[in-house]
Amino acid sequence: MGEDETSTPDDVKSAAAAAAASGWERVSRRARADILDRIAVALEEDRPALVDLAHEETNLAPARLAWEVGRAAEQLRFVAEVVREGGYLEVTIERSDGETPAPGSDLRRMLRPIGAVAVFGASNFPFAFSVIGNDTAAALAAGAPVVVKGHPAHPRLSRRLAVIVREVLADARAPVDALVLVEGFESGIALVRHPLIRAAAFTGSTAGGRALFDAAVSRPDPIPFYGELGSVNPVVISPAAAAGRAGEIGAGLAGVLARDGGQACTKPGLVFLPSGSAIEAEVEGALRPTEPQRLLTPGISRAFDDGFDMLARRADTEVLLAGRAEGDASLPRLVATDLASFLADPSAFQQECFGPMAVLVRYPPDAWEAELPAALGLLEGSLTATLWGARDAGAGVADDEAFAAIAAILAHGAGRVVFDEWPLAVPISWAQHHGGPWPSTVGSVHSSVGATSLRRFLVPVAYQNAPERMLPPELRAVNPTGAPRRIDGGSVA
Amino acid sequence: MGEDETSTPDDVKSAAAAAAASGWERVSRRARADILDRIAVALEEDRPALVDLAHEETNLAPARLAWEVGRAAEQLRFVAEVVREGGYLEVTIERSDGETPAPGSDLRRMLRPIGAVAVFGASNFPFAFSVIGNDTAAALAAGAPVVVKGHPAHPRLSRRLAVIVREVLADARAPVDALVLVEGFESGIALVRHPLIRAAAFTGSTAGGRALFDAAVSRPDPIPFYGELGSVNPVVISPAAAAGRAGEIGAGLAGVLARDGGQACTKPGLVFLPSGSAIEAEVEGALRPTEPQRLLTPGISRAFDDGFDMLARRADTEVLLAGRAEGDASLPRLVATDLASFLADPSAFQQECFGPMAVLVRYPPDAWEAELPAALGLLEGSLTATLWGARDAGAGVADDEAFAAIAAILAHGAGRVVFDEWPLAVPISWAQHHGGPWPSTVGSVHSSVGATSLRRFLVPVAYQNAPERMLPPELRAVNPTGAPRRIDGGSVA
Repeated sequence: MGEDETSTPDDVKSAAAAAAASGWERVSRRARADILDRIAVALEEDRPALVDLAHEETNLAPARLAWEVGRAAEQLRFVAEVVREGGYLEVTIERSDGETPAPGSDLRRMLRPIGAVAVFGASNFPFAFSVIGNDTAAALAAGAPVVVKGHPAHPRLSRRLAVIVREVLADARAPVDALVLVEGFESGIALVRHPLIRAAAFTGSTAGGRALFDAAVSRPDPIPFYGELGSVNPVVISPAAAAGRAGEIGAGLAGVLARDGGQACTKPGLVFLPSGSAIEAEVEGALRPTEPQRLLTPGISRAFDDGFDMLARRADTEVLLAGRAEGDASLPRLVATDLASFLADPSAFQQECFGPMAVLVRYPPDAWEAELPAALGLLEGSLTATLWGARDAGAGVADDEAFAAIAAILAHGAGRVVFDEWPLAVPISWAQHHGGPWPSTVGSVHSSVGATSLRRFLVPVAYQNAPERMLPPELRAVNPTGAPRRIDGGSVA
Repeated sequence: MGEDETSTPDDVKSAAAAAAASGWERVSRRARADILDRIAVALEEDRPALVDLAHEETNLAPARLAWEVGRAAEQLRFVAEVVREGGYLEVTIERSDGETPAPGSDLRRMLRPIGAVAVFGASNFPFAFSVIGNDTAAALAAGAPVVVKGHPAHPRLSRRLAVIVREVLADARAPVDALVLVEGFESGIALVRHPLIRAAAFTGSTAGGRALFDAAVSRPDPIPFYGELGSVNPVVISPAAAAGRAGEIGAGLAGVLARDGGQACTKPGLVFLPSGSAIEAEVEGALRPTEPQRLLTPGISRAFDDGFDMLARRADTEVLLAGRAEGDASLPRLVATDLASFLADPSAFQQECFGPMAVLVRYPPDAWEAELPAALGLLEGSLTATLWGARDAGAGVADDEAFAAIAAILAHGAGRVVFDEWPLAVPISWAQHHGGPWPSTVGSVHSSVGATSLRRFLVPVAYQNAPERMLPPELRAVNPTGAPRRIDGGSVA
């Protein structure tokens, strides 16, 4: 397949059929986990060449890309650990002779793989959310074979990554079609509509995600669609924090706005701060020396300029920083407005603008207790929301009653609420949740990062009065796989 | 509101607003559980009057209705137990100073109520799947306030049940608007589209469920829709079982076909049995003396006649039993076809027909090992699938290699696989799963019965670096609520 080609409709059909028939769901948990570890090793071994290729295709800095290969490897190893532990299966057994809450037939429930899954790679994380990124790792861990639609922003890298994964599968004598790559926009739509595809995961724009979601739910047999779409990641800075920590907060904000060209899904795009705060000058001062950066694609660069222009043209905004670089690179931008203007047109200020930019919303200090909380109730869903308070004596964050009320409001509009830190990093771990209300995600009942990311690709099944030999190993009398189990309504052990 | 009236658009708006603003999600777990128990007591105390009212409106037998009041009370008590236990919250803590897999900030995750929920009652279970049926119990248990759209087949009962629940809430000084009733088809659509409604649960026809699902997913902000739609609940009888246990299996099948007028969602509608089996005569003989039964509604009665007529008219079917009762009552019907005819037009034989009827699919005994498994691969999704084998010496079920292969096929097409028993009963318990692939459910990743039914009305939230006082009790350093927790990547305890 050439660089500009897309998969044919027949390619898509074959890909879905091959993944669905691969037999990946029958590979044992132990073998699946070992293969995930081996893919991690393969990525790390190929790191220098992968970084070069990704740098050519994405403009992201080599150091960042080298880190991201490690991140992808780390998440593969983490989901392998989740698979080995086995708690994700939710094994629950009620024996006919046990003290069940509902005495009767023997009943045994667990989660099993949902079937073949479509994964749509993102442009901004060519490793961590791409061919072998988080969605693929979670699906493979869950036992679901994957057809990946590679992102057109890095086609050669996508192909190389697919080859690496399939080589590891072949070496391990596992089904190579546990991962199949297709390319092209039309292929993505066809994939979501293909009867053998049982779920889809997507990271990208709200418009693109909505189109695919609509395709998924208008099928004769609708399938779950887990999309991570737009998020403005609001930040609220209390009057006390602004008064006492302007330098620290301003420099930190500048750092997270500019990092990787402001192209992270958790980049703060909307910052509420007291009017007249010294933070504004601090952010501006810290952003001014930023080197021009080429964004991921010409399309993102255009959207960045358009988003800024739309805000800059408004009568109710003030442009604080309007850096225009030579050629096709971008410089940071800062726009300010006030709380009354935000309240008059809240959705205008909540359009995600991918790139190094934020909107500052100045609130009168006396709005902290009533008007600001009311305005924060108008926020659309985000992946994260961040609250900065004053430092207390013990170096924890401390503030007043309104602070607690605002924290509660933010916790209803975001998947992760961050106190006194920046939300950019998304550690991979048991307690992580990466999700939130629309439009940050479709399917906000699940997470795309962390241990529960597997849950998106699993469905429950119950066996009633089954002969021992018909049961999956985890449901049998002995428990050789070590999966935690709840037996006869007792606690999980 | 009169018996034939429906709620106005303003009623629907007020209902959604009242439920969303009720504050039910802030009622403590302990208080919620106690209130669920008190509702159970109130139902039981009012049982005689409730049974009379339900009998008038549904034609279901008083004994069955009296049982069903107990069933509704039982599930309220069971979900109360699930709430007290607290494992459903998935509490996960990673301390900044702990040995987390991803050392860094303190991160604490749990599930929280999704917001106000719309519940659509079913006609066939006026208590167990209606105003205070399973979906409502699960939502209230999860902390989600409920707007119920009462089923038009039992309007007076619906209103009475809503009053009982709201009286208990008032007595307990809890928010009475944790449950609000609306009525009428248009109200249901408006409810699913209302911005304050965050999820919907439905039990009913595939067509009705599809319309509501389409409304839910075409919102500007799509919401999860958990629908339980059609299910034919296939049964497969092995040659050995047919040979050795024809009497037992035939009588049992007749019993589950006729029970409650064949109006249960788990009624077997499609039975694969060896051609020439004595089971046919056994079923027929056992069904013949069945008393005529008025079905739930004139609409269901018409659909039952139509479904039967459509099958009876076909050239490839044989009518074994075509009981026509006087007046508006119905008698059992049996239709037979053969495996070749099923293979030629599988969807025609998989139309759910609510009422006392089944289609028998005769397979040649030599089809058991290859043709039959291939045909079973064409089955659409069902809530249950049942497999009858020969009894082994230890009174367990035993059979051959094909039996295991068929069991595996059935486990992919159904939420619950039953061996050597009938699937009609759905015990409420920790291991129960009531769900399955489309069209049996939309949102097959969750269950509508059992401990995990709460999971449909919960979304995750993570707190990063949060001051202790900003955290829900379950996430704090001490654990006064006793909820099981996973700490620093360890096992859940």
